[in-house]
Amino acid sequence: MAREVTHTEDSPYIITPDDIHDEKGDVAICQCGLSATRPFCDGSHRATHDEDEDVRYKYENDDDDGERREIDEIVFRD
Amino acid sequence: MAREVTHTEDSPYIITPDDIHDEKGDVAICQCGLSATRPFCDGSHRATHDEDEDVRYKYENDDDDGERREIDEIVFRD
Repeated sequence: MAREVTHTEDSPYIITPDDIHDEKGDVAICQCGLSATRPFCDGSHRATHDEDEDVRYKYENDDDDGERREIDEIVFRD
Repeated sequence: MAREVTHTEDSPYIITPDDIHDEKGDVAICQCGLSATRPFCDGSHRATHDEDEDVRYKYENDDDDGERREIDEIVFRD
């Protein structure tokens, strides 16, 4: 159960006490990497629940829970 | 400025109002993907600030800000 997720951000997202108060409750933070509303959870992690333990995946679009492909190899430049 | 980050998590991290109160302030959430304390920021994003705009990177270890390699290609299984 693993996947490669493209990240383009270069700074953290700051949650303030006011954010929590506005939400009036808990805040779910994305950890699967697939949420379209990162850093917040949008339920996309459900798409990962039938991943094979021994396969590394890449989702068609990291911003949704669409089609996924199995990674054979990541090739690096010399 | 982009990188592939390995994610193995399959559920969100829940931040509660009590978490915020315990922290007595703001909470910085990792967006670069490189923090060793995900989903929280540990400052690892600083390693991304000299990334080339046209290169996709893979860091030696997604859990630290160690050596990085340039990805040439991701090969998928048929």
